Amino acid sequence: MAQKRLKFWGWGHADDLLSADDQRWLAEGWARRFGVDGFEVSPPPAAEEIELRAPRIAAPASLQAICTSDHYERLLHSYGRSFPDSARMFARDFSNPPDVVAYPRDEQDVVDILHWCAEANAVVIPFGGGTSVVGGVNPPAGGDGRPVVTMDLKRMNRMLEVDPVSLAARFEAGVVGPELERQLKPHGLTLRHFPQSFEFSTLGGWIVTRAGGHFATVYTHIDDLVQSMRVVTPSGVLESRRLPASGAGPSPDRLFMGSEGILGIVTEAWVRVRPRPRFRSSTTVRFPDLFRAADAIRQISQAGLYPANCRVLDSEEAGITEAGDGSHALLVLTFESPDHPLDAWMARSLEICRDHGGSPDDSALERKDSHRAGAAGQWRDRFLRGPWFRENLTARGIIRETFETAVTWDRFRALHEDAIASTRDAIARATGRPGSVTCRFTHVYPDGPAPYFTFHALGRKGALIDQFWEIKRAASDALLRNGGTITHHHAVGRDHRYWYDQQRPELFAVALKAAKRKLDPRGILNPGVLVDPLWA
Amino acid sequence: MAQKRLKFWGWGHADDLLSADDQRWLAEGWARRFGVDGFEVSPPPAAEEIELRAPRIAAPASLQAICTSDHYERLLHSYGRSFPDSARMFARDFSNPPDVVAYPRDEQDVVDILHWCAEANAVVIPFGGGTSVVGGVNPPAGGDGRPVVTMDLKRMNRMLEVDPVSLAARFEAGVVGPELERQLKPHGLTLRHFPQSFEFSTLGGWIVTRAGGHFATVYTHIDDLVQSMRVVTPSGVLESRRLPASGAGPSPDRLFMGSEGILGIVTEAWVRVRPRPRFRSSTTVRFPDLFRAADAIRQISQAGLYPANCRVLDSEEAGITEAGDGSHALLVLTFESPDHPLDAWMARSLEICRDHGGSPDDSALERKDSHRAGAAGQWRDRFLRGPWFRENLTARGIIRETFETAVTWDRFRALHEDAIASTRDAIARATGRPGSVTCRFTHVYPDGPAPYFTFHALGRKGALIDQFWEIKRAASDALLRNGGTITHHHAVGRDHRYWYDQQRPELFAVALKAAKRKLDPRGILNPGVLVDPLWA
Repeated sequence: MAQKRLKFWGWGHADDLLSADDQRWLAEGWARRFGVDGFEVSPPPAAEEIELRAPRIAAPASLQAICTSDHYERLLHSYGRSFPDSARMFARDFSNPPDVVAYPRDEQDVVDILHWCAEANAVVIPFGGGTSVVGGVNPPAGGDGRPVVTMDLKRMNRMLEVDPVSLAARFEAGVVGPELERQLKPHGLTLRHFPQSFEFSTLGGWIVTRAGGHFATVYTHIDDLVQSMRVVTPSGVLESRRLPASGAGPSPDRLFMGSEGILGIVTEAWVRVRPRPRFRSSTTVRFPDLFRAADAIRQISQAGLYPANCRVLDSEEAGITEAGDGSHALLVLTFESPDHPLDAWMARSLEICRDHGGSPDDSALERKDSHRAGAAGQWRDRFLRGPWFRENLTARGIIRETFETAVTWDRFRALHEDAIASTRDAIARATGRPGSVTCRFTHVYPDGPAPYFTFHALGRKGALIDQFWEIKRAASDALLRNGGTITHHHAVGRDHRYWYDQQRPELFAVALKAAKRKLDPRGILNPGVLVDPLWA
Repeated sequence: MAQKRLKFWGWGHADDLLSADDQRWLAEGWARRFGVDGFEVSPPPAAEEIELRAPRIAAPASLQAICTSDHYERLLHSYGRSFPDSARMFARDFSNPPDVVAYPRDEQDVVDILHWCAEANAVVIPFGGGTSVVGGVNPPAGGDGRPVVTMDLKRMNRMLEVDPVSLAARFEAGVVGPELERQLKPHGLTLRHFPQSFEFSTLGGWIVTRAGGHFATVYTHIDDLVQSMRVVTPSGVLESRRLPASGAGPSPDRLFMGSEGILGIVTEAWVRVRPRPRFRSSTTVRFPDLFRAADAIRQISQAGLYPANCRVLDSEEAGITEAGDGSHALLVLTFESPDHPLDAWMARSLEICRDHGGSPDDSALERKDSHRAGAAGQWRDRFLRGPWFRENLTARGIIRETFETAVTWDRFRALHEDAIASTRDAIARATGRPGSVTCRFTHVYPDGPAPYFTFHALGRKGALIDQFWEIKRAASDALLRNGGTITHHHAVGRDHRYWYDQQRPELFAVALKAAKRKLDPRGILNPGVLVDPLWA
């Protein structure tokens, strides 16, 4: 890997740290909110501090060029990027690393690695960017002693074909967001799929976790952006046909979208791209509270206006990110188009906002770069740097996590109330001190929003993981009992399995496991994710 | 059944025949095109003419109230509504009727019928409207002598719940289109899913065949309109959670969408509805040819303008339906909204049309009912009466069928050329005389259109079915070899199986069959559809 090294214990590259100003802003804000003078700051772990168990398996000679048991590589592939992952890393707990990290260069390498692992009865963990916040890339805990090979797809990062007429492009699945966009740019095209993890996460990872993208409405889930895919399973390779739509039987692609690596390794996909936007209309709208804003965006969504961005921050979240002063909810509203001015779309949307007590920032409409300036820009900046905050908070003993869902509009208010109250209660119970729970909407559908919650609690070092789980359990139970999904776009991983089992129909799990048994007969792929291991 | 009786041998109700004027228009037009003086008109079959084999099974006492082996009922459930079905019915060939027709009133009845059939080793054919044009409801031919029970869901036709906030409603799956809309109307709501079969087809049938709806763009496939569903399988009942979206594992609903009754019986679904449209902007645009029109609607679709209707008829189809004079292709373009006037949307679309040599009917824009008047109205009228034409054509020895696909834009022109030429050649070869092959677009996606072909050939009575298959094979092969799907919204049924097997990845069939083995362990549901029977 000729690239800059990634931090094995945090977000981004090794030299990519939050600025001193940002750290001060973060620490002072949270000290004030928690009513403490300051925090003891734990240093991040250094690679030399960690002793890893000896690898339990070695690659055969034919695969040694693409396999490694290097210390740093094993550290880097031990965890994803959730709070419990972060807390374990700060606690120097690397007790369950992969034994080998494999970097396939092409499909044949993937086939060969799977073949070796099946023969050796090794577990395979498919790994894209490793940005999972749900334990999606962690080797299975405890377990039966089978060795673990993590297969990192990031060398498979090329654009293989582009179709400028149908607006589609074929990529290897290990490509990370910026590399994907860089290869599309000379063609005037863009995927515009910008999850918060964009800089480090991969196309294949987006597909198997059903990632949510940049757009707030219409075609935004990666599900809708995939035209076809190629998957290597232990039983062979399959490829779906490139089609704009089809009614021929159940969709093969939809079986693999969200399959989280248990059925096969996505090696390539044709994705639907679009011309770069030339027109944009953007502003922010203040609302007295989240519910008035919700009423407005419900109407906008049901009217078929399809804004590109339609994020609502509650007043507390607007305050914390300094996008607002804490007294009002804020809607960030953007329309964009490669084809036409959007005045009619924006004008009607703002009429709807005013009908629901919203106050648009009229001056923003006049500015060209208003989606990057003012309150919208302030929020955008904090959003993009959000993942870097976590490690600085963990170092200070602050439990910070997000949880997200989608729910029909009729149940949203009750879900919101219960999720906020249950999470606040659990924070007080677990940490003995009030914390913060805020809400924004990331995506909006005609039949319901995707609310996204962020909580902060001042924990006790040494007990952070237990405290986290007490809070997380309360939050997740609240989502489920109010008709929400355990995840709108963060996926299931190992951490959401308990609630996923309650949510998905039992007979679907039976069907999925039967399919897995055929595609992965030895059960080597991500055992325990989505369904019980085949031997269970 | 207190309702008017359906024709067992054709489209619609027994007294619902094409008017004498329409019949004359149809016959004279086709006599002229085929260069013949007229046609010998075969009378439709009468129930009394047909002798059916004795039923091979009888319902147990507990189910006799909802089961029948009545002569008419068995005739009615012997076939769908494809051309070969029509030709067999006119040939008085009812050699493979179901033995029993069951009409469940509720979910428990469905459970009981499946239980009985599993015990009795009887095949179960799920039956909604019976409007399949792909052999989707025909009992398996030849076969192993297992008795056949057709389960007609039409008594399960109630709206059970409505959620006016989230815009969703829960229906029993046997509800036919007009009954569904009638129950929504008092709430000011509509599903606006109008396949050509709308009057007779059912919600459950739409779901398991992935039906295409009224809208040309965005949310139109029933796939996108289903919020959740309830399915009775021989192994138990499953219900998915009502959600606007979810990223929790592969979508359970998507496994059942397009499953064509092989995994279970859909008994209920929550569907996404919308307020009735209050604003509409509609016109027609003439283009020199289909390809210029295609370029225009490609740009409209890729611009994100999302028209409700965006159908293109080639010049010959416009001529035959009298929507045009045969010298130009015609685009029927409509925007509709429950919320706002659509001038900006239409204005930009017409600019695009003019850029591609289109001539809009400006006067239509001024008229209020322009989607029902003028060229658009003429086409709409012929479209709605299309299904009634078939039986009148079969009676005259005219082979009339449609075939449809979806393909990426880059391959559309080659597919179109090959499909038209191959079908024309096959008509000449099979019938010794040229026929007609026309094309329209039913749906449009940013990455490709859904072209819909209609062919007419003058066949020879007694040989119609062989002649049909020679033509159908040539047409289907052309779709497949040019990158199309064997079906965009007509489904697979028994007739498309050969091409479906070439199109879908083999390992997906393996996974699907494994799922079926768990949900339908005795293989009683629609054996041979989508995958081989479990014992094969």
